[in-house]
Amino acid sequence: MENIVSIKNQELEITLQKKIDLKTKPLGSLGDLEHLAFKIGCIQNTETPKISNPTIVVFAGDHGIAKKGEVNPFPQEVTAQMVYNFINGGAAINVLTKTNGINLKVVDAGVNHNFENNLNIINSKTVFGTKNYQDEPAMTLQQCQDAMEKSGNIISQIHSEDCNTIGFGEMGISNTSSASLLMAYFMNKPIAECVGSGTGLNSEGINKKSSILSEVFKKHKPQNSKEALATFGGFEIAMLCGAILKAAELKMVIVIDGFIVSSALLAAQAINKNVLDYCIFAHNSNEQGHTKILDFLNSKPLLSLGLRLGEGTGAALAIPLLKASVDFLNNMASFESARVSGEIEK
Amino acid sequence: MENIVSIKNQELEITLQKKIDLKTKPLGSLGDLEHLAFKIGCIQNTETPKISNPTIVVFAGDHGIAKKGEVNPFPQEVTAQMVYNFINGGAAINVLTKTNGINLKVVDAGVNHNFENNLNIINSKTVFGTKNYQDEPAMTLQQCQDAMEKSGNIISQIHSEDCNTIGFGEMGISNTSSASLLMAYFMNKPIAECVGSGTGLNSEGINKKSSILSEVFKKHKPQNSKEALATFGGFEIAMLCGAILKAAELKMVIVIDGFIVSSALLAAQAINKNVLDYCIFAHNSNEQGHTKILDFLNSKPLLSLGLRLGEGTGAALAIPLLKASVDFLNNMASFESARVSGEIEK
Repeated sequence: MENIVSIKNQELEITLQKKIDLKTKPLGSLGDLEHLAFKIGCIQNTETPKISNPTIVVFAGDHGIAKKGEVNPFPQEVTAQMVYNFINGGAAINVLTKTNGINLKVVDAGVNHNFENNLNIINSKTVFGTKNYQDEPAMTLQQCQDAMEKSGNIISQIHSEDCNTIGFGEMGISNTSSASLLMAYFMNKPIAECVGSGTGLNSEGINKKSSILSEVFKKHKPQNSKEALATFGGFEIAMLCGAILKAAELKMVIVIDGFIVSSALLAAQAINKNVLDYCIFAHNSNEQGHTKILDFLNSKPLLSLGLRLGEGTGAALAIPLLKASVDFLNNMASFESARVSGEIEK
Repeated sequence: MENIVSIKNQELEITLQKKIDLKTKPLGSLGDLEHLAFKIGCIQNTETPKISNPTIVVFAGDHGIAKKGEVNPFPQEVTAQMVYNFINGGAAINVLTKTNGINLKVVDAGVNHNFENNLNIINSKTVFGTKNYQDEPAMTLQQCQDAMEKSGNIISQIHSEDCNTIGFGEMGISNTSSASLLMAYFMNKPIAECVGSGTGLNSEGINKKSSILSEVFKKHKPQNSKEALATFGGFEIAMLCGAILKAAELKMVIVIDGFIVSSALLAAQAINKNVLDYCIFAHNSNEQGHTKILDFLNSKPLLSLGLRLGEGTGAALAIPLLKASVDFLNNMASFESARVSGEIEK
């Protein structure tokens, strides 16, 4: 899972930059689209990159702490209800993937509900949600490892279906709490700087959440990255981490979106730094911790639309920009081919 | 041309907001997509808005001042060369409209070149480019009025082909100079605050441009909005202004992008303020004056991708967000229809 090569290739970088600069436009005038085309070219190791069968995978899991309703405005059963909504095509991510021609897969990573057979979801349930980390680690190290491997297999399968671009989403009531704990661990920040409103807490609720999570953080002393993931994570976050690592190993373009997915990336890059070479950041969410993670990773997201919904909605909105970037690189004329004059010599 | 109604409709606004709030998502969590869906619903006076045959019209025109090469890094003939590039499908706007399923029309608003017949452009040439406003007004008031009417007719024709969403682009070597002059006039700002690098001037070039345009600005005393447009404009800018006014009269969704198009909007809103009700702002360009125009109009663009190319490229990249917004409004499930629980009562 950790055989991820860095994408450095100086010769290709020079070729790509030259190709971009010779297009019929002032130098640099396509802004972020130029950086995107360059990066996707580097990831795919070609000067004619393409976006094939872009796919968003949504991992859903439940959290022990949610049962008390102390950190979450919505009750735990909303996780399962939203999974049905995904299956029935009624959620935001269904609509946005359809609008933008993106495949959507939904994974039961550990929802506290027994789904009927024959539903259009991938069953990867280990158990019916995590333990409450107020009492004990969310999952065992073995469960965490299993979840990561299972998601790696899902990504390998999707990759084998000619998909080279993957985005991630998640659903799990209380999972902003896991993300805050993981952020505190991997970025070595006080909990208060890592807690936000989630799906809609007021300031009183945020203070309470912060104080509860501070206690949780003090209670545990994970010894390494995977132990931290097992202690504070959800199953959907462990699966996200495994999925990101596998996608990088397969040299896929990885579209990172949202606070929860970014917390999984924090774990993934702690396991193997090279994973970041494959990541494109979709959206800067309104959850305060998210902006800090993006800064920590020196990343500049493509979009800032005030989304705070999760599900991979930011990734779904960013993928058209990826398509636009490779299309300009492949299909725009050069000054020479279009016989357009260059700048006036002074 | 100036029969533009305001879109205020309190009853519809309440209905639209309720419809948005009952979707299966935390309140407000789709951010700018929610504002977009709301605004498009108001423009189209319906709770089930749609984006039909979105079209970008690129107006091209030449500028007398460009012949000297003092304010423009590229020579004047690039305008005509780029029009051929549009016709042949090789420019950025060709690629981006194709990627995003948008129609593209190119208009010769006054290019200094005799185009062959049978080319895929709309011929609206009045003359072969403007006069140099260093010596005399760019065009006569009658020429300006004719240009505005001709573009209004083009928009009416496009609208009659079931298009309800229109974006604009432009091509014209030196037209950032016109935009700066119009900005100075309509926003009552010193020229130095309105001048930027255009397609790539360095700071020395910017200072020179600023000093030349200050002289131009002092030389003329236009008495009203249309006279200012005739004095400082290009034919492509006059046509943009007429097109924006006609699109608003036809209750179309107008996607505003870039410094030049925004300068045309400054003139249009000075002629009829209601035009702003129909405008959605696509992108905040790197041209310094553009940000100031956006502030002046109290607008918040959807994208900030560092583009500074014109041609309507920002509009082409924003239109998928418009589609996404109406799709979520029309196709997402409500809490009730999806049987998803609301927030926990405290």
